[in-house]
Amino acid sequence: MATPNQRHRLRDIDNTGFGPNSSVEGGRLINPDGTANLKKKGIPIWERISVYHTLLRMKGKHFLLGIFLYYTAINLIFASIYFSIGVEHLLGVDGAHTPFERFMDAFFFSSQTLTTVGYGHVAPTGMMTNAVASIESLVGILTFALVTGLIYGRFSRPRAYLLFSPNVLISPFKEGKALMLRVATYKNNHLTDVEANLTLAVHEQENGKTQTKFYPLKLQFAKVNSLPISWTLVHPIDEESPLYNYRKEDVAELKMEIIVNIKAFDDHFSNIVQQRTSYTYNQLVYGAKFLPMFERAESGDHTILELDRINEHEMVQLQEPEPTSA
Amino acid sequence: MATPNQRHRLRDIDNTGFGPNSSVEGGRLINPDGTANLKKKGIPIWERISVYHTLLRMKGKHFLLGIFLYYTAINLIFASIYFSIGVEHLLGVDGAHTPFERFMDAFFFSSQTLTTVGYGHVAPTGMMTNAVASIESLVGILTFALVTGLIYGRFSRPRAYLLFSPNVLISPFKEGKALMLRVATYKNNHLTDVEANLTLAVHEQENGKTQTKFYPLKLQFAKVNSLPISWTLVHPIDEESPLYNYRKEDVAELKMEIIVNIKAFDDHFSNIVQQRTSYTYNQLVYGAKFLPMFERAESGDHTILELDRINEHEMVQLQEPEPTSA
Amino acid sequence: MATPNQRHRLRDIDNTGFGPNSSVEGGRLINPDGTANLKKKGIPIWERISVYHTLLRMKGKHFLLGIFLYYTAINLIFASIYFSIGVEHLLGVDGAHTPFERFMDAFFFSSQTLTTVGYGHVAPTGMMTNAVASIESLVGILTFALVTGLIYGRFSRPRAYLLFSPNVLISPFKEGKALMLRVATYKNNHLTDVEANLTLAVHEQENGKTQTKFYPLKLQFAKVNSLPISWTLVHPIDEESPLYNYRKEDVAELKMEIIVNIKAFDDHFSNIVQQRTSYTYNQLVYGAKFLPMFERAESGDHTILELDRINEHEMVQLQEPEPTSA
Amino acid sequence: MATPNQRHRLRDIDNTGFGPNSSVEGGRLINPDGTANLKKKGIPIWERISVYHTLLRMKGKHFLLGIFLYYTAINLIFASIYFSIGVEHLLGVDGAHTPFERFMDAFFFSSQTLTTVGYGHVAPTGMMTNAVASIESLVGILTFALVTGLIYGRFSRPRAYLLFSPNVLISPFKEGKALMLRVATYKNNHLTDVEANLTLAVHEQENGKTQTKFYPLKLQFAKVNSLPISWTLVHPIDEESPLYNYRKEDVAELKMEIIVNIKAFDDHFSNIVQQRTSYTYNQLVYGAKFLPMFERAESGDHTILELDRINEHEMVQLQEPEPTSA
Repeated sequence: MATPNQRHRLRDIDNTGFGPNSSVEGGRLINPDGTANLKKKGIPIWERISVYHTLLRMKGKHFLLGIFLYYTAINLIFASIYFSIGVEHLLGVDGAHTPFERFMDAFFFSSQTLTTVGYGHVAPTGMMTNAVASIESLVGILTFALVTGLIYGRFSRPRAYLLFSPNVLISPFKEGKALMLRVATYKNNHLTDVEANLTLAVHEQENGKTQTKFYPLKLQFAKVNSLPISWTLVHPIDEESPLYNYRKEDVAELKMEIIVNIKAFDDHFSNIVQQRTSYTYNQLVYGAKFLPMFERAESGDHTILELDRINEHEMVQLQEPEPTSA
Repeated sequence: MATPNQRHRLRDIDNTGFGPNSSVEGGRLINPDGTANLKKKGIPIWERISVYHTLLRMKGKHFLLGIFLYYTAINLIFASIYFSIGVEHLLGVDGAHTPFERFMDAFFFSSQTLTTVGYGHVAPTGMMTNAVASIESLVGILTFALVTGLIYGRFSRPRAYLLFSPNVLISPFKEGKALMLRVATYKNNHLTDVEANLTLAVHEQENGKTQTKFYPLKLQFAKVNSLPISWTLVHPIDEESPLYNYRKEDVAELKMEIIVNIKAFDDHFSNIVQQRTSYTYNQLVYGAKFLPMFERAESGDHTILELDRINEHEMVQLQEPEPTSA
Repeated sequence: MATPNQRHRLRDIDNTGFGPNSSVEGGRLINPDGTANLKKKGIPIWERISVYHTLLRMKGKHFLLGIFLYYTAINLIFASIYFSIGVEHLLGVDGAHTPFERFMDAFFFSSQTLTTVGYGHVAPTGMMTNAVASIESLVGILTFALVTGLIYGRFSRPRAYLLFSPNVLISPFKEGKALMLRVATYKNNHLTDVEANLTLAVHEQENGKTQTKFYPLKLQFAKVNSLPISWTLVHPIDEESPLYNYRKEDVAELKMEIIVNIKAFDDHFSNIVQQRTSYTYNQLVYGAKFLPMFERAESGDHTILELDRINEHEMVQLQEPEPTSA
Repeated sequence: MATPNQRHRLRDIDNTGFGPNSSVEGGRLINPDGTANLKKKGIPIWERISVYHTLLRMKGKHFLLGIFLYYTAINLIFASIYFSIGVEHLLGVDGAHTPFERFMDAFFFSSQTLTTVGYGHVAPTGMMTNAVASIESLVGILTFALVTGLIYGRFSRPRAYLLFSPNVLISPFKEGKALMLRVATYKNNHLTDVEANLTLAVHEQENGKTQTKFYPLKLQFAKVNSLPISWTLVHPIDEESPLYNYRKEDVAELKMEIIVNIKAFDDHFSNIVQQRTSYTYNQLVYGAKFLPMFERAESGDHTILELDRINEHEMVQLQEPEPTSA
């Protein structure tokens, strides 16, 4: 294993935003979806949660289901109010109906008011019913103003649409080796001025306490002008790398985490987009290299990028560093 | 007290945007919510106030109340118009009603027109009433277009959601001491490329006039990559600090103000967010240090950040600087 | 007058985006509202004009008038269609009416359809009328979707809300003099990281042709952290200034134009905002200095900024540069 | 032809985002509209395509047609449902009608429900029909919320509105020559802080394989403060240029591609905008220079920019480099 002395000549960094004591034995700092592996407490949930952004990030089907349930709930509430005032104030409702039927008449009148369809074959009479209907139509308009904003917000939310290779490889590189991972945009979006940032987190034993140390992983190219095809991020494992003295056995032993952050300008949104992910030690493949994921189209006039091959790699022999004497 | 000579070797800065004469005896420059403690005059209020942003920053319940009052007011206005034209032009209104009842019929017809529910059991006849109803429905649509925009604007307005510690501490730091304050995001948002900026404002007597001087307070780390947990801003009080020669007594005596500005990129909004606050001298605690506000979850697989402990600190003894001879 | 040699030691700049031949004798390059004094030709107007932005920048009353006229026009068109199909297909219209009355019935039915009020006391029958009404209600919804977007766009359009002093002064400054102009935000908005940029354009005779030369005017402070109160932009007229050798007579003689650009981050919009203006030679006051435009509130706890005093200045004597021998 | 040695002293660059093997014989890398000449495969189309942005970038008439078809389709679907439940549940539909007429009654009722016009001369009765109508009006509101967002998104999408000259010229420049192309904004928009970036892609034979090499083309001015009139991008073909040793014959022979990227801040949108294009070898004109495309207005008080003259150039004689001995 690497001697502490050798690795510690490398300066760890303190400006990651994670404290040195934030380490969680067996846990990870960043989840694969880029969120921090963290829970907040101490203030009420409605202050801790951004409702708007939760609704924006919710899956489409959950969002639609939520709207449907909300719509039903509001109608049930107003139907109950109309029902308790008396359906006889709803002009056009047949008084001969059963209570259930009358409730449903109130329910459908409510939905016609909430959506502002207002056919009018059922219509409100009397102060109370009219006032409630007047408020309900206002509620309807405000609700759907909100829904309009949410739907627009969901679609227009800037996202990088990046696909990361599920594995990070230790591959042959020049005379030595390098840590490599691959990234590509999977939508018809176009990124320019793309910047990548890799940070290694190692949970180290120091004076009997577990300390989390952070090391920047320098990239061969940390910035590309545009990202039309795939991009292989290459961290050369040279003498300046914190991974220099690790051997195959160390990689399995150490509970490393590699935090990846990509920031770029997106043409679609004309906005900065950002996506993060993190790799833990068990996603690392020692001695492998990526295979090309694009090829020339048969017609010869364009390139084809095969996104399902983003993780395609083959195992190769690596030259191990010689054991160092402590 | 610190000798002016010693402090004045430090260069004050002029590019804060506050003039040297903007000092207000006993007042502050920046309010705790980050707005400038300033009133503007000389042009009409509707030119001085951004109505849109006032509506955006208004509390939710005030905003809803405002909409409700607006809705009632518009309906009262149009009801009065229909009433003065004559409710006999509203088809379906019973002429046998009392004037109050007839006014209310006009009121509810107005609300049905404004919200475009338009049940039709009451309907306009005659040129005048039809024309007014036609205009009211246009007003309704424009109003609710505006409300849709406002509601979207309220939700989508980029904010940093930062919680600052109510106190700023003078804490032990390395061999000396440091000024410290703590900040954390209190929502499920994620900030990256976070930059902090601290400025000290001191109202000094100079030639019998009160002058406001500004000094930058250099931070140990002025930038962090991300802000998943809390961040303690540390200004080391070393020889280069404008606070270097202050002792405990001076702090109480001087009417200092510390202006804090945090700027970051927010993942939720994909936008730059910014939040400011300011601490006055009576928020400063001399001789105290912050206690940790996060801990490992019992399950061991994530970290818990306790937001109600952001100001938790304990008193400690500080080594006082030796009295200087003037 | 300044000898060309002396001024030409200063390097003019070519990267203003204005070509050297863009000079217009007696005209200006930038209008006071910041737009370029330029017309485009050669492609159809609908390709040259951004309709959206024209509607966004239009005055509020013109915008409302435009919507009202559009609303009337669309209703007239659809009323004509219903009328030509035959109002007998509009259930509820009294056939005994005069043609004008019947047209107005069609007009009001149209407005009820366009706004989707749809009272229903007049309702479409027959294939044709139904189909037209069906299309009109779609048109109505699309139109008001557009209007919603426009209203939101108008309110949320980032603007700097900067008030510039109508005059630019040559004031005493240190041992010499300086060119000064004053700027302040006139709304309750807050700008940070404010950058100012001044460019001098001079239309010079060279080889019998009028050439426009551009010189940067260096500012004492080109950037301030925030802009809570007014900011006086100061260009010291020292040896490095292109204005160094000008005397009072030259200023009147030369057709100078000073282009001012302010760029800042605005807290309200969380966006970069920018505002430009330009001063021509006849807005320049030689020998004057600005008077303060803010003062302490009587209550003593805040500052008052008097926006109507932005241009308040008093005449002062300037030390003229000694005549230079060519 | 240029000797490889001479050209290869120039360093090609690897950070374009295009791989060295991405070359496609006879194809181009970037299409004239700025999109990459690339297809993506391997994941389902709905994951590969951003529906929102496709709808945003679609031509206006296609967008309107799409909405019309969608509206008709939804109405057909709901009409079929009402028809199969039985039109006798639609109050006001004459049962004596033919099946086609009854279907059309259901169709128009559907459109009145979807748009929330709801005249009410046809109205739903019975649980089933009421429930379907209730859902349809919800669908209508959600759909038009979506359409509102799309229309706003289409209008407010930041775009550079740049017009590029269809040809790129090799023109005389100082003592030598330069590669030139011209760009102008064609709308009433205003760009500031405009940055241009030119990259030369050459498909070279190396060891029997076609390799794509990228060379930056240095510009005389890569940045201008603003872009009020046209801007001629000038790449001087000096000793540092990768094009230095090319002669007229080489240009025809080599399959070059010049990728142009313009990035700027736009005043209208208060946002960064970006536009790309690419020129292939057959768009290059050897020995020509652009003619002015702006002139003084007859009134003398403004400038006229003639956009249809953006490509206007005249042929000129170029001094050929002397043949080099390999």
